[in-house]
Amino acid sequence: MTHQNGHSSSEKNLDIIDSPDDHFQDECAVFGIFGTPDAAAHTALGLHALQHRGQSATGIVTFDNSTAQFYTHRGMGRVSANYHDPSVMEGLKGSSAIGHNRYATTGENSLRNVQPLEADLDLGHVAIAHNGNIVNYPKLRSKLQKIGQIFHTSSDTEIVLQLMAKSLKENLIEKLNDALAEIVGAYAFVALVNDSMIGIRDPNGLRPLVLGKLGEAWVLASETCAFDIIGAEFIREIEAGEMVVIDQFGIKSHRHHPKTNVFNCVFEYVYFSRPDSISDGVSFYERRKHIGMELARESHVEADIVIPVPDSGVPAALGYAAASKIPFELGIIRNHYVGRTFIEPTAQIRHLGVRLKHNAIPTIIKGKRVILVDDSIVRGTTAKKIVRMILDAGATEVHLRIASPATKSTCHYGVDTPDEEELLANNYDHSGMVNYLGCTTLAFISIEALYNSVSTTQNLLHGSTTQQGDTPGYCFACFNKRYPIEIPAKADIRKFPDN
Amino acid sequence: MTHQNGHSSSEKNLDIIDSPDDHFQDECAVFGIFGTPDAAAHTALGLHALQHRGQSATGIVTFDNSTAQFYTHRGMGRVSANYHDPSVMEGLKGSSAIGHNRYATTGENSLRNVQPLEADLDLGHVAIAHNGNIVNYPKLRSKLQKIGQIFHTSSDTEIVLQLMAKSLKENLIEKLNDALAEIVGAYAFVALVNDSMIGIRDPNGLRPLVLGKLGEAWVLASETCAFDIIGAEFIREIEAGEMVVIDQFGIKSHRHHPKTNVFNCVFEYVYFSRPDSISDGVSFYERRKHIGMELARESHVEADIVIPVPDSGVPAALGYAAASKIPFELGIIRNHYVGRTFIEPTAQIRHLGVRLKHNAIPTIIKGKRVILVDDSIVRGTTAKKIVRMILDAGATEVHLRIASPATKSTCHYGVDTPDEEELLANNYDHSGMVNYLGCTTLAFISIEALYNSVSTTQNLLHGSTTQQGDTPGYCFACFNKRYPIEIPAKADIRKFPDN
Amino acid sequence: MTHQNGHSSSEKNLDIIDSPDDHFQDECAVFGIFGTPDAAAHTALGLHALQHRGQSATGIVTFDNSTAQFYTHRGMGRVSANYHDPSVMEGLKGSSAIGHNRYATTGENSLRNVQPLEADLDLGHVAIAHNGNIVNYPKLRSKLQKIGQIFHTSSDTEIVLQLMAKSLKENLIEKLNDALAEIVGAYAFVALVNDSMIGIRDPNGLRPLVLGKLGEAWVLASETCAFDIIGAEFIREIEAGEMVVIDQFGIKSHRHHPKTNVFNCVFEYVYFSRPDSISDGVSFYERRKHIGMELARESHVEADIVIPVPDSGVPAALGYAAASKIPFELGIIRNHYVGRTFIEPTAQIRHLGVRLKHNAIPTIIKGKRVILVDDSIVRGTTAKKIVRMILDAGATEVHLRIASPATKSTCHYGVDTPDEEELLANNYDHSGMVNYLGCTTLAFISIEALYNSVSTTQNLLHGSTTQQGDTPGYCFACFNKRYPIEIPAKADIRKFPDN
Amino acid sequence: MTHQNGHSSSEKNLDIIDSPDDHFQDECAVFGIFGTPDAAAHTALGLHALQHRGQSATGIVTFDNSTAQFYTHRGMGRVSANYHDPSVMEGLKGSSAIGHNRYATTGENSLRNVQPLEADLDLGHVAIAHNGNIVNYPKLRSKLQKIGQIFHTSSDTEIVLQLMAKSLKENLIEKLNDALAEIVGAYAFVALVNDSMIGIRDPNGLRPLVLGKLGEAWVLASETCAFDIIGAEFIREIEAGEMVVIDQFGIKSHRHHPKTNVFNCVFEYVYFSRPDSISDGVSFYERRKHIGMELARESHVEADIVIPVPDSGVPAALGYAAASKIPFELGIIRNHYVGRTFIEPTAQIRHLGVRLKHNAIPTIIKGKRVILVDDSIVRGTTAKKIVRMILDAGATEVHLRIASPATKSTCHYGVDTPDEEELLANNYDHSGMVNYLGCTTLAFISIEALYNSVSTTQNLLHGSTTQQGDTPGYCFACFNKRYPIEIPAKADIRKFPDN
Repeated sequence: MTHQNGHSSSEKNLDIIDSPDDHFQDECAVFGIFGTPDAAAHTALGLHALQHRGQSATGIVTFDNSTAQFYTHRGMGRVSANYHDPSVMEGLKGSSAIGHNRYATTGENSLRNVQPLEADLDLGHVAIAHNGNIVNYPKLRSKLQKIGQIFHTSSDTEIVLQLMAKSLKENLIEKLNDALAEIVGAYAFVALVNDSMIGIRDPNGLRPLVLGKLGEAWVLASETCAFDIIGAEFIREIEAGEMVVIDQFGIKSHRHHPKTNVFNCVFEYVYFSRPDSISDGVSFYERRKHIGMELARESHVEADIVIPVPDSGVPAALGYAAASKIPFELGIIRNHYVGRTFIEPTAQIRHLGVRLKHNAIPTIIKGKRVILVDDSIVRGTTAKKIVRMILDAGATEVHLRIASPATKSTCHYGVDTPDEEELLANNYDHSGMVNYLGCTTLAFISIEALYNSVSTTQNLLHGSTTQQGDTPGYCFACFNKRYPIEIPAKADIRKFPDN
Repeated sequence: MTHQNGHSSSEKNLDIIDSPDDHFQDECAVFGIFGTPDAAAHTALGLHALQHRGQSATGIVTFDNSTAQFYTHRGMGRVSANYHDPSVMEGLKGSSAIGHNRYATTGENSLRNVQPLEADLDLGHVAIAHNGNIVNYPKLRSKLQKIGQIFHTSSDTEIVLQLMAKSLKENLIEKLNDALAEIVGAYAFVALVNDSMIGIRDPNGLRPLVLGKLGEAWVLASETCAFDIIGAEFIREIEAGEMVVIDQFGIKSHRHHPKTNVFNCVFEYVYFSRPDSISDGVSFYERRKHIGMELARESHVEADIVIPVPDSGVPAALGYAAASKIPFELGIIRNHYVGRTFIEPTAQIRHLGVRLKHNAIPTIIKGKRVILVDDSIVRGTTAKKIVRMILDAGATEVHLRIASPATKSTCHYGVDTPDEEELLANNYDHSGMVNYLGCTTLAFISIEALYNSVSTTQNLLHGSTTQQGDTPGYCFACFNKRYPIEIPAKADIRKFPDN
Repeated sequence: MTHQNGHSSSEKNLDIIDSPDDHFQDECAVFGIFGTPDAAAHTALGLHALQHRGQSATGIVTFDNSTAQFYTHRGMGRVSANYHDPSVMEGLKGSSAIGHNRYATTGENSLRNVQPLEADLDLGHVAIAHNGNIVNYPKLRSKLQKIGQIFHTSSDTEIVLQLMAKSLKENLIEKLNDALAEIVGAYAFVALVNDSMIGIRDPNGLRPLVLGKLGEAWVLASETCAFDIIGAEFIREIEAGEMVVIDQFGIKSHRHHPKTNVFNCVFEYVYFSRPDSISDGVSFYERRKHIGMELARESHVEADIVIPVPDSGVPAALGYAAASKIPFELGIIRNHYVGRTFIEPTAQIRHLGVRLKHNAIPTIIKGKRVILVDDSIVRGTTAKKIVRMILDAGATEVHLRIASPATKSTCHYGVDTPDEEELLANNYDHSGMVNYLGCTTLAFISIEALYNSVSTTQNLLHGSTTQQGDTPGYCFACFNKRYPIEIPAKADIRKFPDN
Repeated sequence: MTHQNGHSSSEKNLDIIDSPDDHFQDECAVFGIFGTPDAAAHTALGLHALQHRGQSATGIVTFDNSTAQFYTHRGMGRVSANYHDPSVMEGLKGSSAIGHNRYATTGENSLRNVQPLEADLDLGHVAIAHNGNIVNYPKLRSKLQKIGQIFHTSSDTEIVLQLMAKSLKENLIEKLNDALAEIVGAYAFVALVNDSMIGIRDPNGLRPLVLGKLGEAWVLASETCAFDIIGAEFIREIEAGEMVVIDQFGIKSHRHHPKTNVFNCVFEYVYFSRPDSISDGVSFYERRKHIGMELARESHVEADIVIPVPDSGVPAALGYAAASKIPFELGIIRNHYVGRTFIEPTAQIRHLGVRLKHNAIPTIIKGKRVILVDDSIVRGTTAKKIVRMILDAGATEVHLRIASPATKSTCHYGVDTPDEEELLANNYDHSGMVNYLGCTTLAFISIEALYNSVSTTQNLLHGSTTQQGDTPGYCFACFNKRYPIEIPAKADIRKFPDN
């Protein structure tokens, strides 16, 4: 017996002319700030900077120290649409706050699943926001239901609240520790627990979380670009397996899990993180440019111009052009006004093959041998269209170069991936892909070259000594199926992690 | 540490020119139907007929037998505003449904409190809607929180779901019985428990619940007027302490509590129930007319015309006029277009003493001795204004006659009453009230006369033998403080029961 | 070549279960106030009191003397929904204001037709609101279009602005006089013309307009109930053919047309005006009660109870009961929560014969001979349903008594009437009507009796000496087709006057 | 006496943290299509491609040949928000359509000003959409008001309808010609006149209009990118002074004004047109890259990296980098999620100097001599912030290079420009600007170099023989105050042309 929720009728329209972006889709953003007036406004700004990680819903919970009260706003849609109303912001009183952006997966999009989630526990109030996926959530949920716990959301984040509620510890932080001891997965949490703010990162560091400071206030965020928007200073990453507890007496750190191998999600380097966010002292823009250079070295081809698929392919294309000495041209223009919905196409309109989002400039493409660079290929639907568009614009050859290896497996750690049978690389061999995409040649960067281009400084920093396969320090499971955390049996897999 | 919810900003405007209706405020409506196509549409109609019992929010949960799925719509505002959208109704598939109208109390008006509430329990799905108040809710909630249950609403209805979840019984109906064994209070529940519909009434019969039939389908409702709108036939009242379970094999009844004294809420007779609803074979219209006759006999005065405060005072005024042989006149016109909000009054406008809702007709009042009849006085604010209006219209005398005794105490059984210190009768003696209201004379019907006029047939039917004070069969606690169910200590009283 | 307007999609839902009220439908309300702070708030209140005359849209235009600026708000829906927003009210600055409520006719419901209409003319700004119908509008519009005037609405009110624009006079008031000289019809106008407020009534006084005072401020309104809500004092009616000009120096009156026969719309007495509004010193409540008395005398029948169709039949039923000495009972309860839309009925639901608006009380009807009183019958659809409902409730006889003559002809003077072929009395003879309606007997009040009951004081006051047929002083055209103003040829008739 | 309109309250929120984009702001887009099913859907797509020319409002008027009816939708906001509703699109029946995007200027943003404007004239229906400014509108409006024409909008487009209405010609096309003979200014019109579609360009070709074909259907648009989205083929530009009339018999062209000097708006080349739009066989992307090359040659400086202000500075920066051989880096990331409104900044937040839209990447800027390239400087507010941001990111030098001359004068031809006293170049000499902006050096491209880079092919094509100053074929008035069309006296200038 299942249950479906009828209240979110506003969700039903999807972008129906353009196929949705053919990307792995990140997976939510978290932000928190402790110890500043207008904590909610800072959080709204931080969430705005992290909008690329999730656009379907957003929430903020604040804590007002003077009255010991919590305040909440949660709503569907974007950050700017939710927090421009002065009455909403005035309602979010307090000097500490956490917030969340949610990525839209199909299915349960109702307001009750919008984070931060909250609970009044016996010892106080907890609000928590999550980026990641708790792999053993279905099993834990089922166990807890059997002993009489009622679940109010279909979000795996709730399991943390339920486990805290069942913990026998006499202190909320210890209850939270008890909860973390039960869960397995990839996670970055920010939480308000009574008058403290907490930041937590999973034992393998699969999902990112960084710590910053703005004057005396402490800040937590998924990426450093959320520090830049409010002028906060980057202090350090939260370590894999670390929990920080921030209260009026300062910050305390402890490990909730012993040290183990680190497996940072390599797709943060390829696509998820904003180019201006920084990791280990290097921006993702530079890393992607460097990946493009490696790609050029691995898959050189004679050509006249290098054109990126904007915006995600631009850094790698710049790197490719630099390494190959082939001129870079912005030969495709992207229309940034595309909303989430548009007119329903009639047969007549569908037939047009409408280009809502991208348009090629024929005057610079005509008669040219084009190297077309994108960051990744998932189903291949968009790439196929864009190759066609470049050829229609008069290119004599289209050499498609992809700044990541071919994606072959589902992510179980908080990233929305299609069914494996939908992935292009699972349906065709190399020549089949070339044929399907209609390009002259096709090359993906190799796992090794990608590893080299991202790992330069990383290994040293994380001191990863144990080697799991060929990519110490990173998770490449979507390319090579080497899952660093055991994944559940087929039956227990949730199709759509929400965080 | 408490928590306040920020998402329902649409709730904040209140009617600010007119003082809100000076009445005890009922307390919600429940409706359920089992075994008909379009169960949701029938439920929407039933809830529409019961709109007078609660206008702030409404919800419907349906069960579709063919797919074993539940569907929900819950929304703020009135029935007609929530269910005219065809896409909402199409989403509410199924042949059984329960629904709820909620009365607005201040405070927690967020969507998460809108009923029916639901839970996925280990053995299946439960949806429940409630009219009443669970007196020991604060104590039970606190106990359950201590053992790790998380509450997601501030509605006392949730306690039933939580108690079911903790029950060790192996069957949902038995779990529900376990839950009823723990709760104390006044309640009428309708529930969907997997593929059954349940109706439950509290041991004392404080809150009403009636059973009807529409063809082969069974219907439950707070009042019989909800049967009339869909053409259903009234079968009988659900008895005090009775639970009925309706499924594909028919209806089964059992007692969840042993027989005890019945205490029907007398305010259903005075004001809450719609005049065309019927109890023990008599309409509330007739009962109120009869109360007016008793009132005329008790408090005769020489006068020229009898005028009701519309609409609630009309039946009693008709009775008063009939018994006293003084002509009845609709001397006050009520504007039914008054919405929940209106312009914010400036000082200039406030000074006008604007009459948004009522207007007197001076041409029939001028020079007359007026008997002004209303059903009840709570704070006296509206009565004072209306007495003033009648005098301004030229009445030489205004004899205020009230078809219920003076209200002196808070209801703890699901009726919204002001603080006792706000009640007019607690602030003034009789002459003080006359003085405050500005009337020539003032009379309330006596408890005895009210009892006589409602109890004619009732005693026999309910066979109540034990006498509690002077009003066997009825609760008169708001008039005489004789509470049939022990009320909790001050500290544990919830200010605003939501159901 | 015609044009249809696509922007008002919110209009399309109509009440689809209940047939719309089977009444002639009034026709709009006008209100104006000059010389008070918060003129807009006073106007919103006045329009609220006049809400019964039109619910589809409303507008207010204010004039701020200190800056010589005009401010406008116009919107679809009710008064309370439009003016509760503080930012709307703050925007409507000024010490004079006019307002309008619009009755919904099918067709052109777009915002551009919502009144007051405005124009920037060469000599200044004019805003005007209208209740009535300009009979020669189609002809005038066509003429003006031929000489190059562009019409921006489909409202006949615009013709006044266009005629003013074309007038050669050197003064806006004189231009307005020129415009009035051209138009033929039934009209009550309030206007702001630069810094003056104007009130105008048609030569025959078909549509009502009254003058009042609130302190030093002058007030104009369709009915006196709009004075009561703000505590203004009734001064006098605007006379047929009169124009009053109110400015900072006081009020001036002149005739725009010479004296001629007065023909007040008799349907204002029967149904349109609010019962508490007053005309010639008598309330419409009393007049209707008196009509009911006449009706009882004309069409006596043996019976047990008199029941009104609420709310419009109540005063006449009270009169009928008083004159016939048969007891009055509120045997039908009306649900005032009916919104403009509700669920779309499926076949299943339609079959129920749902009673959204009215419900009979069987316990007072069963076994009785019932006299059922309503104010009028138009198509007969509602009456047929209600007769059925009374019989279903157990009445042995239903004697339908109507407090107006049988309606037989279209109104061309600002009242929404169905096509003549839809009128019950045009489709059946008396026994046919009895048969269609299903009642035991049927009687309409005679034209003579209606005339007598409304004309007692009227003749003297208006000094009408010329007799047109049998009803000096009143228009009875909808009953007897004697049109006091010549109506245009079929081709030129506008189906839906909007004012 | 003036008039202000209160109904568009949704307009009041402006982007209040970020200063609005410091650009000249174009000025609206027009689109039309004749002879295809789903004409409205094609138009919505075309308007979407032209969204960059105006985001405040949009409208479409269609003509359905089979019924000779027109249909309209006009609404505030973006294209995708207005046309995704299927009921809107279904309402826009017909095989020809015109549409408009409107740029938001302050002031009169009400729906009545949203284009296309329409009028029912004596000989038929006209709908018209306009990009440009009718310089003599105030004078013409005043004249027409004096002879009795009523204006219903504050849009200069209405003057065309009013002049048509007053024309004595017996044919709508001739009436339109009469109207064009009266107006002076910069304009591109698309119109539906009964069953024809019209395209018109002003005598000097100041505003752009191009002609295309999609199968048998004719298309008109402000830019060629609107052809690409529906797959239409570019045919030619509408010539300066040309009118094309498209009907079922084909396309006819005639001159509404004799040939005269052509003055294309040079700012279309600098900023307005989308980079992928094409003019004279060259894309604006290439033209801007070429401008960047010229700029590099004129204002060479030793530096380490070239960084564009995204997105508008990118093509010129690519050109600059190519010509100067200095590496190009995307050192500033733009957040495309910025909506039109955001949180109201408190003092605390304001103090942060929040960067909603742009963020610099310090890891590639630190220690570098940066050449910062933007397309234009208007007030200098954004440039000042971005220079500061680059310096904060660690640049040792910031050499600001602008791909247009210093803007010094107001545009009177349809472009929103600030008051001249707000323009940076009118407030400072060169060293003052350097000082204000905080950059190391500053250079604008010279008028000559800009002229050379855009005029290569242009002169020949347009055959412009008469020379006006130094820029035959182009209007450079905003740089050099040489206005090709006489501008009205100060008093008659409208501050905010709407088209």
